[in-house]
Order: sequence, then structure tokens, then C-alpha cells
Amino acid sequence: MLCLQRSTDAAWAEEALADLDAVLVDHAHCEMKAATNALSLAARHPADFELLRALTDLAREEIEHFQRVLAILESRGVALGPPPVDEYAADVRRAASRLPHLARPNPLLDRLLVGALIEARSCERFKLLAEATARTGGPDELRALWTDLLASEASHYRTFVDLAVRAACGERTAVVARLERLAELEASIVQALPARRHATGATRATMHG
Amino acid sequence: MLCLQRSTDAAWAEEALADLDAVLVDHAHCEMKAATNALSLAARHPADFELLRALTDLAREEIEHFQRVLAILESRGVALGPPPVDEYAADVRRAASRLPHLARPNPLLDRLLVGALIEARSCERFKLLAEATARTGGPDELRALWTDLLASEASHYRTFVDLAVRAACGERTAVVARLERLAELEASIVQALPARRHATGATRATMHG
Repeated sequence: MLCLQRSTDAAWAEEALADLDAVLVDHAHCEMKAATNALSLAARHPADFELLRALTDLAREEIEHFQRVLAILESRGVALGPPPVDEYAADVRRAASRLPHLARPNPLLDRLLVGALIEARSCERFKLLAEATARTGGPDELRALWTDLLASEASHYRTFVDLAVRAACGERTAVVARLERLAELEASIVQALPARRHATGATRATMHG
Repeated sequence: MLCLQRSTDAAWAEEALADLDAVLVDHAHCEMKAATNALSLAARHPADFELLRALTDLAREEIEHFQRVLAILESRGVALGPPPVDEYAADVRRAASRLPHLARPNPLLDRLLVGALIEARSCERFKLLAEATARTGGPDELRALWTDLLASEASHYRTFVDLAVRAACGERTAVVARLERLAELEASIVQALPARRHATGATRATMHG
């Protein structure tokens, strides 16, 4: 799916939904971190209007999703609590930093590719959650949430890839090859996640820092 | 105006408008920092739903304003460039940190009060810019921008004060006294700003960090 090199096992979603509150809490934090990250990346590239517009649009959307998940948490009487350590995102960022450079070091390109990959993994997992919720007769509100989020993650994925190609001066072939290489590394990272994190974490992760 | 203890001289606005591009650039950066700051404050207080909602609403609005100013900059062919050092906001934060504690150290309270004060100063200055633009027959688009921003800053000021009272467990009298004390210090800070910063900076500033 999208650029992913390894599919999440379909059983993951049913395990995750067994602790739905944890999935929601995890995802609220992820939206918040994604918004913060998009703004921090925008602030580092003030001269690029197109990048600024795209990243601030992304940030607004992440904040809207955060607020939507927050309202569901509140209606369920679940507290948000402090954000968990996000090993998955940190590992993907580290993997990107170890890839050989293209023509020159390009940290913006790599942050965008990490973003693309994380959005792709989120999209995949929200699709699994949407399907599992439908299969098990879960609430419509949640099925609608997962469906909206998966569409949004797919769109963010495309935004990040397009911005990455721009950041690499239009070298789409080289960028796609780099994304594929990073996707292979991400496949190993996702597989190595501890079972608990695998169950509820990394529904979405972030690329901040 | 609002809690301010010293008014900006009306001549400030005409000086500032003589370098309109600089005012717009400065304000774009300020909106971005204000959005980042609101999110960072929200992320530090995940357990408080009301605070989270209010701060993420604020952040969304700051991003919308950033995008609006960005579009004007782009239409004028003006680049954004890296953000200037924000001495004003740093000085106000430092002043707050030196006030004697209420019952106990309360960093959230002080960040909210610094936010309130910065919004109050912005509101005052946008009012001056709106009046000067009307007086000098400046473009309607800009007059509308300043007027919308001043209304928004006034509303953010009230949000910050209300959140500060909540953060001090409803002790409104003590909070208002603390805000007045901080406003006295801010009056000296604003007066001591170098002429150039006084002309174009601090149309809005931030409380991040």
C-alpha cells in the first residue's frame, strides 16, 4: 500500500481495538506531534512560499483531527496523559539519516520522506481499523473516524512525496528510489516494535526533532 | 487599552507603515511563533481538555492569519526570510519569571499572562495601524486585515486571561493584580525597544520558549 514494503498483519487491528482507548490516546498525541512538526519544518524554510502553504495546511488539518479525537476521548471519559516515547518515528528518522546522500546532504528531503512513510503506515493501519470496526459491528462514529483519517493520511502522503520531489529539484526517480530504500528499513523497524507498541502505537507516528 | 499601562504613540503607526513590507514580514513570523507556542503549551498539559481545546483553537487561528499574511506578502513579491530575534517577547517572559510567586510557582499561569499581555499590545498596535491606514487612504485589503487582527487579538487576550484565572484555581483578583504588575514591566520594556524594532517589531510578539 502506497510505498510500504511490508503489510501489517490484519490481526493487528482486532488486537488494537481491544484497547480502543489506548489507540485513541496514541493517535491524539500523534496528531499533535505531526502538527508541531509541520510548523517547525515550515519555520525553518521561511523563503519557500509553496512549502509554507503546504505545511501550514497540513498543520491545520492535524490540529482539526487532534480536536476530533479529543472530543471522542472526552465523551468516553478517557484522559490524555503525557505523550509516550515514539520509538518508531525516532527509528525511521535515524534510518533516513544513515542513507547515503543524493548529490548533497538534504535534510529537508529526508524529513519529507520520513513524513511520507509515516503517513503511509498510518493510512494502512487506519484502513485495517476501519475494516475491523465494520466487521465487528463497532460504532459508526469510529468507523467514520478511521475512514476520514485514512483518506487524509493518503493525501498527506502525496503532499510529502510531492514536496520531497520539489526539495530534490524535480529528481522524481531518485526520490522514489530513496523512498523505497527507506520503506525497506521502515519494514524492519515496524516488525521489530515490541508487541505492546505494535498493538497500539504507531497507528501514526511523527517525524519531529 | 485592555491591560496596557502605557499607550504606543500614535505616530508609531505612520512610521511603521512607511515600511509596510517589514510590518507584514514581522507579523507573519509572529503568527507562526504564536501558533507554535500555543501547541507547545498544549502538549505540556495533556490532561486538561479545556486548556487543550482553547490552545488548539488559538493555534488554528494563528495559522490562518499566518496564511493570510503570507498571501499578501506573496502578492507583493516580498520574501519572508528567517525570523528576527524577538527581544520584546523574551524580555516580557523574563519579567514574568522574576515576579514573586503567588501561593506557589505556577509556570502555566505566567505563560498565559505573558500571552495575554502580548495579545493586548498587538491589539493596540493593530488598532493604530487600522486608523493610520484609514487616515492615509491606504488599501482596503490592509485596513480589513488590521481590523480583523485587532478583533482577534482582543479575543485571544480574553482567552489567555480566562485560562490564567483557571490555572490559578479561580483566584481572579490575584491574577488581575499579577497581570497589572507585569503590564507595568512591559510598559518599560516597550519603551526601551530600539527605535527600529519599535517601528516594525512587536506589532505582535510571542511567548514561546
